[in-house]
Amino acid sequence: MVIATYRVIDNPQALAKRAEGIAVGLTIGSWTELVQTRHQQVALHCGQVEGIEVIDEVSGGRVIAEISIGYPQANFDGTFASLLTTVFGKLSMDGEIRLIRLQIPNQLAAQFPGPKFGVSGCRARYNVETRPLVMSIFKACVGLTLPELVEQFEAQARGGIDLVKDDEIFFTEAYATPEARVVAYRAAAQRVAEKTGRETAYAVNLTGPVHQLQQRAQKLAELGAGALLVNMVAYGYDVVAALAADPEINVPILAHPAVSGALYGGDTYGIEADIVLGQLARMAGADMVIFPSMYGSVVLGEAATARLIGHLRSESVHRPALPAPSAGIYPGLVPQLYRDFGNDLIVNAGGGIHGHPGGPAAGGQAFVEAIRAVQGGWSLADAAKESDVLRQALEKWGTPS
Amino acid sequence: MVIATYRVIDNPQALAKRAEGIAVGLTIGSWTELVQTRHQQVALHCGQVEGIEVIDEVSGGRVIAEISIGYPQANFDGTFASLLTTVFGKLSMDGEIRLIRLQIPNQLAAQFPGPKFGVSGCRARYNVETRPLVMSIFKACVGLTLPELVEQFEAQARGGIDLVKDDEIFFTEAYATPEARVVAYRAAAQRVAEKTGRETAYAVNLTGPVHQLQQRAQKLAELGAGALLVNMVAYGYDVVAALAADPEINVPILAHPAVSGALYGGDTYGIEADIVLGQLARMAGADMVIFPSMYGSVVLGEAATARLIGHLRSESVHRPALPAPSAGIYPGLVPQLYRDFGNDLIVNAGGGIHGHPGGPAAGGQAFVEAIRAVQGGWSLADAAKESDVLRQALEKWGTPS
Repeated sequence: MVIATYRVIDNPQALAKRAEGIAVGLTIGSWTELVQTRHQQVALHCGQVEGIEVIDEVSGGRVIAEISIGYPQANFDGTFASLLTTVFGKLSMDGEIRLIRLQIPNQLAAQFPGPKFGVSGCRARYNVETRPLVMSIFKACVGLTLPELVEQFEAQARGGIDLVKDDEIFFTEAYATPEARVVAYRAAAQRVAEKTGRETAYAVNLTGPVHQLQQRAQKLAELGAGALLVNMVAYGYDVVAALAADPEINVPILAHPAVSGALYGGDTYGIEADIVLGQLARMAGADMVIFPSMYGSVVLGEAATARLIGHLRSESVHRPALPAPSAGIYPGLVPQLYRDFGNDLIVNAGGGIHGHPGGPAAGGQAFVEAIRAVQGGWSLADAAKESDVLRQALEKWGTPS
Repeated sequence: MVIATYRVIDNPQALAKRAEGIAVGLTIGSWTELVQTRHQQVALHCGQVEGIEVIDEVSGGRVIAEISIGYPQANFDGTFASLLTTVFGKLSMDGEIRLIRLQIPNQLAAQFPGPKFGVSGCRARYNVETRPLVMSIFKACVGLTLPELVEQFEAQARGGIDLVKDDEIFFTEAYATPEARVVAYRAAAQRVAEKTGRETAYAVNLTGPVHQLQQRAQKLAELGAGALLVNMVAYGYDVVAALAADPEINVPILAHPAVSGALYGGDTYGIEADIVLGQLARMAGADMVIFPSMYGSVVLGEAATARLIGHLRSESVHRPALPAPSAGIYPGLVPQLYRDFGNDLIVNAGGGIHGHPGGPAAGGQAFVEAIRAVQGGWSLADAAKESDVLRQALEKWGTPS
């Protein structure tokens, strides 16, 4: 059984009947009456009520309750379309109801691709054995010429960044197609590598019509893309899964959470953030997942973040994925990041790199130094004595209080 | 410019800065500072604040406001991924913010396929010149054998139904694949047509991995499918667009709203229902769109419904689509349906057909009689004198008070 748990607001007397209506109506029945489970074959597909728990009272005699429904595995076909339509299809339109938990048996989970690379595959790919990876974003993409973009890429590469990602809103091909960018940035990375010994990878925004995406992804991989940045919710999980399942697309997938707030933002409707950005992302094959950090202005909350990380890392038929918390990341925060997330992490900075007084190369270098310090067991203050760029970063952004 | 309007809750003093941050930051800039619009090329891509309107005060000194932002057309690439990521990507995660309106210039709208058939194409396809179409749903699908399903289909066909649709949660292929069903129901429809003169069409649930969908859709069309039922939000608008844009898929698309409530259900987050189920559905190429009616237990509300219908029918670069309001539809409601929606409508009934005392054939026939009455200018009461099945339906469900 796939067990879905919903938070509802309803009259307490209505809960049992509502749960039964969901279990039967969203599997084998219609909305007017229970279908007679007149033979075993149909019964195999019938949903069942797994539990009803009243959580709290609200106004007007209503309560907040959690209803759990089991859906037989046989009702699904291994796609996210089947999963979401079944557990939160019509039901999503049924008033104050929110999908808050999904328990998926391994046998069904195994029908989804999961990460092709995962944590260890990304570490091997980006040649980063133990420490957190460092990722940056272009300060600007849209409207810039290829030489201007290459200049930004090189600056970040000189700072020792492991992975530079596109702005996820970079769709225009007027000045620099994704293909041209992959080729140009790879050349730039190789130039920088001659001096630094490290080749910075590029996460290119995968764009265009869905029926061309797999071919485009293959091409970009062949040209040397370091990763594919995919607007996961905008395109849909099944689109991501098609990329992850394709052996010809031999490059990690970096999932961007654009549009996901439209699903998880509320609390009486929609789908919990940890499901949207953790559980489903990993099943769909995201190797690295960007999500709102606890350090920005709008946060998911500690519990939701813990559940999200848990989904990315739990024992599973799928490889674990790398979390990339985003927003409000600066070098002085790095020890906190280790405490909150451990080693298997992408330190993902935008302003925290570009805003460095010495420019983006210095900004990237400051993060690299901060990570080196934590890896080596030194305090940032001590490390800053040996590193101007780190010192400047600590002067500008400080450390968390 | 694509102009997106958002409903936000914020401090009134913060609104102008927030609007500016959206306009610049979600086009050409980063989150830390404004990018210098140092040359014309970048400026072409910069967003602009189109308006800020305070609507109401709420607690804590905050206000509800509507912020409108213009995004240059050049930032989009003709996909829904680019549209949604740009206008509601990161922004969707920015706290209490809801996308409530989207104004899309014809030049950009024309890059989206729109309905291949539209109202007139569906009328021609289903041979229904002027009256509303009648659609029914299988009472049950999951777990039934092909002969049992054919029996249900034939009963509905005998009732004179124009279009019979699958349950949108019908994914299992254990007993009857979509291909086998299309062939079997077509044969059944032809058998019934020999007696009734009308061939009932079948809207088959299009299922499976995205990279196989186009091919499967073509095959189902060749085998004689009357329409493709597509879980539009579960699969994603770009997936629907790929089907609509494909000339080899010569069959109308019937969009199901499953999962859409997760996007539109709230009021401080998400995306308005008329955008999700009206505007974007038509742009994506849905020829017929199922949405919650005003007659069910959970409604969109009059204003939202009017906007949704407006989106399906407005003067546009795209053909208009047929609305299929769903929930709480029974024969006695038909005159009300005409008043609320006019002729270009799909009368979409489930329980209102299967719950008829005489069975589904009688149930379908009762709708056909009710529509015939309204077309001919007779009252239902008068028509019921000549029609047992209509009389029984009126006795069971009545008419709206």
